[in-house]
Amino acid sequence: MRYKLTVEYDGTKYHGWQKQKNARTVQEELETALLKLGIQTVTTASGRTDSGVHAKGQVVHFDGDVKIPLSSLPFAINAYLPEDIAVVKCERAADDFNARFDAKQKTYCYRLYVSRLRHPLFENNHYHVTGDIDLDKMKKAAKVIEGEHDFKCFEASGSTVTDTVRTVYEIKIETKKFIDCFEVEIYVTGNGFLYNMVRIIAGTLLYVGQGKLSVSDVENILKNKDRTAAGKTLPAKGLTLEEVVYERS
Amino acid sequence: MRYKLTVEYDGTKYHGWQKQKNARTVQEELETALLKLGIQTVTTASGRTDSGVHAKGQVVHFDGDVKIPLSSLPFAINAYLPEDIAVVKCERAADDFNARFDAKQKTYCYRLYVSRLRHPLFENNHYHVTGDIDLDKMKKAAKVIEGEHDFKCFEASGSTVTDTVRTVYEIKIETKKFIDCFEVEIYVTGNGFLYNMVRIIAGTLLYVGQGKLSVSDVENILKNKDRTAAGKTLPAKGLTLEEVVYERS
Repeated sequence: MRYKLTVEYDGTKYHGWQKQKNARTVQEELETALLKLGIQTVTTASGRTDSGVHAKGQVVHFDGDVKIPLSSLPFAINAYLPEDIAVVKCERAADDFNARFDAKQKTYCYRLYVSRLRHPLFENNHYHVTGDIDLDKMKKAAKVIEGEHDFKCFEASGSTVTDTVRTVYEIKIETKKFIDCFEVEIYVTGNGFLYNMVRIIAGTLLYVGQGKLSVSDVENILKNKDRTAAGKTLPAKGLTLEEVVYERS
Repeated sequence: MRYKLTVEYDGTKYHGWQKQKNARTVQEELETALLKLGIQTVTTASGRTDSGVHAKGQVVHFDGDVKIPLSSLPFAINAYLPEDIAVVKCERAADDFNARFDAKQKTYCYRLYVSRLRHPLFENNHYHVTGDIDLDKMKKAAKVIEGEHDFKCFEASGSTVTDTVRTVYEIKIETKKFIDCFEVEIYVTGNGFLYNMVRIIAGTLLYVGQGKLSVSDVENILKNKDRTAAGKTLPAKGLTLEEVVYERS
């Protein structure tokens, strides 16, 4: 029987999703919890999240002969998971449902806060920006990035993906003011993402906000597929996988 | 010379604001950082926050012969503070400014999230509620609590305060929906608060939301000054001191 789990985690203490030797990973914690319930299985996620990246809605499937009723299963799994990981939804899935290949749309959020001084309550899942930024310019540049493009320019080196065309459906920038500080949330929704793509998009938008790049520079970066001209890859801790959407389950 | 600092902290690892023997406190960390800058002083906060309570805008004053320019001072202090505490604003104050006695208004926020299952990304600063709650009823009960009252009914035992009349200017309840979960933020603004008052108000509103108390029960609790009839004191981790307002500095 195949199961579909939605998993939330604070990635701070993990070397990403994928199991590896000599490092603590989310996949390993989840499979260990399942094993303690008598379910020996290998889990497949919608995608690997990098070391330090968080998730509100990571989706995972696994096959198993599960004796526990579906309504009790998430509570049973959570009892064996550490505090910073939890199953937040548990469903039966079709035998050929695949959390990775059936994913039609993903939303990531990159969070930053703008303040001269550091703010402890933001530090866990935000990147700290010290100077002023121009949000209107960032929103204009975001519009340029939306749509179907060859996103080679926003891919970290070392990837073996050959087809680098993706569609970004929407980039939504939300802001909230606090005392002496404001928060910027960059929600990026697309049909798929290249390695480090959201963190490079966030870095490029930040450069636009800081005046290091113009909106037309971003147009040229996309047109010329020029990674070296784009912004830097922002740190993992600001990134959260918010939601994965499927047409079927 | 007197200085006024605005301090933000994640209270998780601290036994509250006030210095005490054999326990790590925010006041001690701050005074140790000041001492490392050659400023030996005693700090006074707008109020003591309890063990585990957070602050976005705690206000503190101290006297000191400070050689560092005002614009550099917060950076200098932060360099000696742990990651979960930071000065976010630094001002000169009048010689008779008092962070405690001059505070005219304070806003606290009590945060909770409602979900059958636990959500790791909320756990640090939210209280987890598992069943459904009726927000409309909570908002009606909040209106009953607003205003000038004898808040003896919402004071933890053991306090030595004699005048228990306070004014709650506003209770604002904000909600945000997430996948399989929603967040409730209860902002309470008043001219002052009794011991555990905000956590008891939050607990009482929660009981109303859960149907354990009615709106007219809350009216009676206030009228009869009956602590035993009010809701329980909710855990410290959901509470944040958001802002302290002064008429002068």
